[in-house]
Amino acid sequence: MDHTEPIDQLISTLTRLPGIGERTASRLAFFILDEPDRLAEELSEALTAVKDEVGFCERCCNLTGEPLCSICRSTDRDHSTICVVADTPDLRAIETTGEYQGAYHVLHGIISPLEGVGPDDLRMGELLERLESAEANGGEAVEEVIVATSPSVDGEATSLYLSKAINPLDVEVSRIASGVPIGGNLEHTDKSTLSRALSERREL
Amino acid sequence: MDHTEPIDQLISTLTRLPGIGERTASRLAFFILDEPDRLAEELSEALTAVKDEVGFCERCCNLTGEPLCSICRSTDRDHSTICVVADTPDLRAIETTGEYQGAYHVLHGIISPLEGVGPDDLRMGELLERLESAEANGGEAVEEVIVATSPSVDGEATSLYLSKAINPLDVEVSRIASGVPIGGNLEHTDKSTLSRALSERREL
Repeated sequence: MDHTEPIDQLISTLTRLPGIGERTASRLAFFILDEPDRLAEELSEALTAVKDEVGFCERCCNLTGEPLCSICRSTDRDHSTICVVADTPDLRAIETTGEYQGAYHVLHGIISPLEGVGPDDLRMGELLERLESAEANGGEAVEEVIVATSPSVDGEATSLYLSKAINPLDVEVSRIASGVPIGGNLEHTDKSTLSRALSERREL
Repeated sequence: MDHTEPIDQLISTLTRLPGIGERTASRLAFFILDEPDRLAEELSEALTAVKDEVGFCERCCNLTGEPLCSICRSTDRDHSTICVVADTPDLRAIETTGEYQGAYHVLHGIISPLEGVGPDDLRMGELLERLESAEANGGEAVEEVIVATSPSVDGEATSLYLSKAINPLDVEVSRIASGVPIGGNLEHTDKSTLSRALSERREL
């Protein structure tokens, strides 16, 4: 194909996105061509805005276009509870439940000795600062930290490190529950999840 | 989610693309955020270019950023053979085979009585002009027209219409072969494909 043509240029740029092959890119490009002007224009503007405007929230390190993210700015949320997550997609996954009304802290990674990621490579310092002074948390003292890293080896290591670092402070630390997923089937649940479900059984 | 945030804006714009749901859009948006600046910028530029610059090739009605598409401009191709296709994706599918060295004509649709699409809604006039005068075909007289519409009801109707329209002219008309696909399996081939494969059998 002649890559000087604008369509080929668009297709080849689209294939650089994850999970988008030549066929999908081509389908997307022709869809964009057929749509009224505004889709291409709005997508183009959104792409520019996302790179120009997005930075870290000064308080929780979430990605945002403002100095403080919309969650930290919100007066409807409970800023005395902080849910610690590995990255922004995890934060969004929790937000979609609609269950959690507290604040967040985004570590931007998890401790991974194999990949050479230690606590100093993460946004741990900013978290401890928020726990030590109410001022760094927008004026409200933190009462509980919920560690919501994945129940993987690295996620558990991060959780252990956090509980050790936070325990000397006057803040409760909790960990999200692990066990058989809702709708899951005991027969097809892996051994480690089943053991965890047994050892963390609750009284009824 | 707060749609004033640039990330949410990008995600919601991406979900307007076909086959891209909330999850994929979110994965794409975070990928774009993590990539060095040029991906977002290049994609944004490619989107603008495709809408601003792309139009129809004056000769074959292919989509192009120039007055003539790269195939019609090429001096390496045989402009005495025209392959008629329904749309640009079909043209590209044939190009990927690397087998065809002739020119094309893009109808931008097929005759479909059910959807109210008749010959006058397609780029038939432009094709007949190219067949009638060598001048309209860049100076070379057309010797053969290969009808490469899909072997569907509408595709066959379009093919029949074309052969009737072209027969009075001094131009050969042919149709792409139909039959059992390569790698296909007789047992799982549908009845109409098998009948076609039998009736269009070739001598060995």
